[in-house]
Amino acid sequence: MIRKWKTNSYTNILNTFVFNYFKAERESGELKGQFDVLECRNWINVFAFDSSNQLILVKQYRHGIDDITIEAVAGVVEKGEDHLVAAKRELLEETGHSSDNWTHIGRVSANPAFMNNYCDYYVARDCLKVSEQNLDALEEIDILTLSLEEAHSKVRSGEIHHSLFLAGLGLLSLSSL
Amino acid sequence: MIRKWKTNSYTNILNTFVFNYFKAERESGELKGQFDVLECRNWINVFAFDSSNQLILVKQYRHGIDDITIEAVAGVVEKGEDHLVAAKRELLEETGHSSDNWTHIGRVSANPAFMNNYCDYYVARDCLKVSEQNLDALEEIDILTLSLEEAHSKVRSGEIHHSLFLAGLGLLSLSSL
Repeated sequence: MIRKWKTNSYTNILNTFVFNYFKAERESGELKGQFDVLECRNWINVFAFDSSNQLILVKQYRHGIDDITIEAVAGVVEKGEDHLVAAKRELLEETGHSSDNWTHIGRVSANPAFMNNYCDYYVARDCLKVSEQNLDALEEIDILTLSLEEAHSKVRSGEIHHSLFLAGLGLLSLSSL
Repeated sequence: MIRKWKTNSYTNILNTFVFNYFKAERESGELKGQFDVLECRNWINVFAFDSSNQLILVKQYRHGIDDITIEAVAGVVEKGEDHLVAAKRELLEETGHSSDNWTHIGRVSANPAFMNNYCDYYVARDCLKVSEQNLDALEEIDILTLSLEEAHSKVRSGEIHHSLFLAGLGLLSLSSL
């Protein structure tokens, strides 16, 4: 019967733009060890569809893999910000689109093995272009629209490969939307 | 038109059990900045089904969220190890099961924004119990079996929430298996 471990100490080692790194000393019965924990802010992903049911995706350079990805609209939930507010803000900033038709389709843990944060997923329907992009200082984002079937095809070919996009497809396949 | 950024420097800041942390100084046109990169080993996930088509899942305490999760069989690909060999090894170690029927269903990037690694997904069919668990020194793992429909139900209820499990469901829904 799996139980939660007891935390003996929890020490902040290093803080960066993306994460704060902690060492946790924990024990369970006769087991005892030190474990890496990254504290990150929560994230949102938006599966945004326009009035023609085309998925609005973003193409950008990603520093982790030093390569270009195609992904859903996504971003960080700011401190004290509501998830839905963050989702609407990111859709507007990254694509200039807005929607009055939002549905929360699920929440995943980013990586429970060593990260403490979650990603909330929204579907936005009938998105309309209402402004230009409003990007962060170090962001460059192209927009592309694909049918869901075309997006599936790019997953099968490996061109779309972000784990959080795939997790969103998983949630979408289980939702009634 | 999105282009790859140029790397001016790439500096190792800190090495831990789970990741090696680097600062990359990069530029693109007039944009220039420092970016966090975590180098991690690649991972594998196994969607393991027994001869009754029940999904063999693992329940364990996870240090990132300080809570208990239900997940697919998963683990790290050791240096120089083949992905499929790692998948077979993890299935045997975590559950004592073995299979002669393996299919690679896809690969995702863990988080291209700041991580450099990938996770390969396998479906293993007709798994048989051939040994006891053989866990790492600091692992405690319970095994449970669910139909795929029961697993879907636990995703909908939020009881299963690991992003990499959900990504696997996304891949599974797009495969012909």
